Amino acid sequence: VSVTYPKGFRAAGVTAGFKPSGRPDLALLVADDGATAAGVFTTNAFAAAPVRLCRERLVDGRARAVVVNSGQANAGTGPDGEDDAYVTSAALARALDAPAEEILPCSTGVIGARIPVQKMTAAFPELVEALSPAGGNAFAEAILTTDTVTKMAYAEGDGFRVGGCAKGVGMIRPDLATMLTFVTTDAPVASAHLRKLTASVLEPTFESLTVDACSSTNDTVLLLSSGAAGGEAIRPDSKRWGVLEAAVREVAESLLSQLAADAEGVHHVLEVSVAGAATDEDARIVARGIAESLLVKTAAFGRDPNPGRFLQAIGSSHVPFAPEDVRVRLGDVVVIDKGAISPIFERQDRDAAREAMDAEVVPVSVELGNGTGSARMLGSDLSYDYVRINAEYTT
Amino acid sequence: VSVTYPKGFRAAGVTAGFKPSGRPDLALLVADDGATAAGVFTTNAFAAAPVRLCRERLVDGRARAVVVNSGQANAGTGPDGEDDAYVTSAALARALDAPAEEILPCSTGVIGARIPVQKMTAAFPELVEALSPAGGNAFAEAILTTDTVTKMAYAEGDGFRVGGCAKGVGMIRPDLATMLTFVTTDAPVASAHLRKLTASVLEPTFESLTVDACSSTNDTVLLLSSGAAGGEAIRPDSKRWGVLEAAVREVAESLLSQLAADAEGVHHVLEVSVAGAATDEDARIVARGIAESLLVKTAAFGRDPNPGRFLQAIGSSHVPFAPEDVRVRLGDVVVIDKGAISPIFERQDRDAAREAMDAEVVPVSVELGNGTGSARMLGSDLSYDYVRINAEYTT
Repeated sequence: VSVTYPKGFRAAGVTAGFKPSGRPDLALLVADDGATAAGVFTTNAFAAAPVRLCRERLVDGRARAVVVNSGQANAGTGPDGEDDAYVTSAALARALDAPAEEILPCSTGVIGARIPVQKMTAAFPELVEALSPAGGNAFAEAILTTDTVTKMAYAEGDGFRVGGCAKGVGMIRPDLATMLTFVTTDAPVASAHLRKLTASVLEPTFESLTVDACSSTNDTVLLLSSGAAGGEAIRPDSKRWGVLEAAVREVAESLLSQLAADAEGVHHVLEVSVAGAATDEDARIVARGIAESLLVKTAAFGRDPNPGRFLQAIGSSHVPFAPEDVRVRLGDVVVIDKGAISPIFERQDRDAAREAMDAEVVPVSVELGNGTGSARMLGSDLSYDYVRINAEYTT
Repeated sequence: VSVTYPKGFRAAGVTAGFKPSGRPDLALLVADDGATAAGVFTTNAFAAAPVRLCRERLVDGRARAVVVNSGQANAGTGPDGEDDAYVTSAALARALDAPAEEILPCSTGVIGARIPVQKMTAAFPELVEALSPAGGNAFAEAILTTDTVTKMAYAEGDGFRVGGCAKGVGMIRPDLATMLTFVTTDAPVASAHLRKLTASVLEPTFESLTVDACSSTNDTVLLLSSGAAGGEAIRPDSKRWGVLEAAVREVAESLLSQLAADAEGVHHVLEVSVAGAATDEDARIVARGIAESLLVKTAAFGRDPNPGRFLQAIGSSHVPFAPEDVRVRLGDVVVIDKGAISPIFERQDRDAAREAMDAEVVPVSVELGNGTGSARMLGSDLSYDYVRINAEYTT
């Protein structure tokens, strides 16, 4: 159950032949009566052609369809890539009898590779034919690249539904990455208010994940509302706004955890919580420094409760705090106390700390003692598999 | 030939028993008639106790001896660690009949581990006895931790000599890391002018190396002048200043290359040159972004000339440039031209680019087309060996 859980959406996924594996690689989501829409995109200067087209087309806050090809990122493809994105979405608009400016194209796959335009347009009739209110799973499957499982989530609100799916296992960090996330709702929400939800819920959630500190050219998070649940429009001052926010957050958090659990080569997810920073932004810097530290990531893979590596990462964050106020826990075990390696840890808690690192999700809590700023960041460990996947990836 | 190449210095290295391996682990460098001295240290907030003591003691710009223990970093050790550094350097001062404030202590090894004070002081008589004008090699050997080879260099100026040695294979990035570097000269130079040399030559050189983007608690670069070559003091307005600067740079650059070549798990060194940035600092950000990118580092290990990974890293640097002006070369092969993957690369140059990646040092040149700022950064690839070394490292 994913993007078609809310009313007013149909979806499909087919094999157009973009992937050598022969797996589904072309996905379509349609709001037949149109939808309001908002999005957030990568900040990479080499943003892919479809990302730039989506940004333009979302200015008026309306969308009819989202089309995703997996296999070719259409990034680093110059003016030809722009043409390809434009031409294919125009062809789809004709097949759907929809205005071209309401088609949102997304691409994911190899950077520098162009979309096989003829293959894609040739597959449109089959794709449109396959559209179904039960097509959410097929859509979630067809957007995958090196993902090993689909990522889907749903939530129910007060008379409305929220659904979503996501993909992305590498080139993921704050600023977004080769991550695509689609969240739909049938709650009636104006596009201005969808933008508010995007900024207050979706953006901070998906910026709390770092796999490899590499910000991709194609990251896209889209939020679409069909309004098909009916009833009064939900606005920030509506009674139901909080319910909607909670439902969107539930779907986003679920997709976030699913993305982290399927990160390239992952054996353990690190869940880093930082409190006591001067500001939330400071806390974020420290949390991200820990989650992205190669020495922390390799220690996590080796299940080695090495407090020195946390000390090193926190100390090089350059945010204000007094070293002697810093405390770090691994699971429930205090490994750093008053800014120094805890003597109790050295004497007796080492085995308990090692056990905490056996978990699939390893909680690391940092208290800086310098204020009320806090943040959370999910990261993955650095394993032989990560190196293998990325050293053997074919250009 | 290393720190004792210039006149006026004696050195030694002995086994005090800090390392389980039984290899030499205590090193001493002495300027019998005293030396002027300057240093640059880690910016990590959890700077080790010896780093803080060195900083204090260098205020007056004079030094008699440098003592280095390898095995225990004396970082994250709280007030006890401060005492240990103080007590051991006081004991050494007595053994050398020197003022305690002219002893510069350095530690490298496991963070959180305290110095074995009794073992160290017990070894001082043997260490002092072993001092010799030919002891540079023994000194360079005894400062090593996970290094596989010693790093030594020397140069000759106009009537004076410069020598140096270094250690450090992991936890290395700009801001310095578990890297210790010692450079000596017998040229007569006041401490204020040594500081100038440190700032203009040593600091920028050693900030051009990133192994794992992890800034350590113990990084130290020391520059000592015995003045034993005699003659007029060399000042920034002296004719010989340029010669001195060149000799110090030659030693520093040589040590830098030796550090990069021995980086943990390294198979290929990446030498990233960025030109055409608005400022040198912008160029540095881009160069470092490339050298620290996990996807670039794994591609280097896999000898995969994947232009998309360079595009990704450059694009997420957030410094100003026009994407369509960017050109990237791998060796002599243009892989990105006008901001897009070069069609010539796709058609015919892929094999040549792959050959460029077979080299021990892989040159990556980036032209941003936005000004005259430039920078160079050395990095290492990310291999199975790096993961093994750091996942299996014992706390």
